[in-house]
Amino acid sequence: MMKIDILSLFPEMFDGFLNTSIIKRAIDSSLVEVVIHDFREYADNKHKKVDDYPYGGGQGMVLMCQPIIDCLKDIVTKESLVILMSPQGKTLEQSYSQKLSLEKHLVIICGHYEGFDERIRDYVDVELSIGDYVLTGGELASMVVCDSVIRLLDGAIKDISHEDDSFSAGLLEYPQYTRPYEYDGNSVPDVLMSGHHENIRKWRLKQSLLKTYHKRPDLLKKKDLSQEELKILQEIQKND
Amino acid sequence: MMKIDILSLFPEMFDGFLNTSIIKRAIDSSLVEVVIHDFREYADNKHKKVDDYPYGGGQGMVLMCQPIIDCLKDIVTKESLVILMSPQGKTLEQSYSQKLSLEKHLVIICGHYEGFDERIRDYVDVELSIGDYVLTGGELASMVVCDSVIRLLDGAIKDISHEDDSFSAGLLEYPQYTRPYEYDGNSVPDVLMSGHHENIRKWRLKQSLLKTYHKRPDLLKKKDLSQEELKILQEIQKND
Repeated sequence: MMKIDILSLFPEMFDGFLNTSIIKRAIDSSLVEVVIHDFREYADNKHKKVDDYPYGGGQGMVLMCQPIIDCLKDIVTKESLVILMSPQGKTLEQSYSQKLSLEKHLVIICGHYEGFDERIRDYVDVELSIGDYVLTGGELASMVVCDSVIRLLDGAIKDISHEDDSFSAGLLEYPQYTRPYEYDGNSVPDVLMSGHHENIRKWRLKQSLLKTYHKRPDLLKKKDLSQEELKILQEIQKND
Repeated sequence: MMKIDILSLFPEMFDGFLNTSIIKRAIDSSLVEVVIHDFREYADNKHKKVDDYPYGGGQGMVLMCQPIIDCLKDIVTKESLVILMSPQGKTLEQSYSQKLSLEKHLVIICGHYEGFDERIRDYVDVELSIGDYVLTGGELASMVVCDSVIRLLDGAIKDISHEDDSFSAGLLEYPQYTRPYEYDGNSVPDVLMSGHHENIRKWRLKQSLLKTYHKRPDLLKKKDLSQEELKILQEIQKND
């Protein structure tokens, strides 16, 4: 079983997330244990203060190292990977989520719109960002990391539905249709109604390649294309 | 006042987020109104079903277009920007959050681990992704978008603290320190204790450039560097 400890000043932010569908099921089936630690409880001053003014001056407050480091000392073992959510971190990608899903124990530190005392970084194995945008805190970012990792744990998702995921196959997903057959004058493409499995497979592959070519050509460069994929892609480029 | 409507099958996931610090304050001060719509209520079948098997076969279920489109028809006006959270979308960046923060009305559609009926895309202005990883649903992603946008609204954050943000200035933030002066044998750099403002400014700028150079050199290429920054960067490269 994987264990995830999260350090945050806003534990209540996680309630909705931990109670939702796949995550809740993964917790209930003991695939993962998630514990939220309010590191304010570790503050060794009488007012339970966790931040203070920056040395050298400047706007805003800075999270003190003492509460976070003392909390880490209680939690971290040799098997832990300590992650600091930070805009300075390496950007999360699916391949890294896959790597994280093999860990036994993740410890994730969330700040909240303030900076961290730099000395916290000495206790951190990885700094991680979820993208090049600024958030009010690391809480949402840590949930994004947990969500992308937990769904990869064996048994978290039924059947082989991972395999069709965007990014996992290296291509964007083909268009999907379900009932009704016609809506607002738009109907389902004929091939999907044909019952001809090989034609459906070919159509879907071509649509995947088309979408990826137009929306995310960078993904095509990263992917090791099959002979069939290469041939379809050449046709697409010729007609473009 | 900005309005944000979110379409989701898991409205309770948003509780924690909407009650947290900056977001709650922005809502309480009428900078933004956020409404979550459970589009299951729009399903026109007796069992309030929102998904069905894909035409043409395949794993998993597909969200039907009817409930989502009927919900949109109730909400969308000429002033709305309709966003679909999707791994196929363009990747969110800070500059796009800034653009979104100028909109009057955002409508954000969240799916949940299933695909969408392709016909929904006809009603969408922008497809948006928060990064190249797979999530169990669009809920966390939509919160990330809201968070990054709401904090940019005038009055959402006190003072000028945006300006120091990573990405906004195009450089990673310099190291911050606060009390205690010494912790676990590590003390605050002398310059920050000196009271010499110009030296502190220079030290911080150099540290920002150093961090960016080592962790995110791609950001340096995007930034229009000042003469002072260029000179420091050349020194850093020389000593590397």
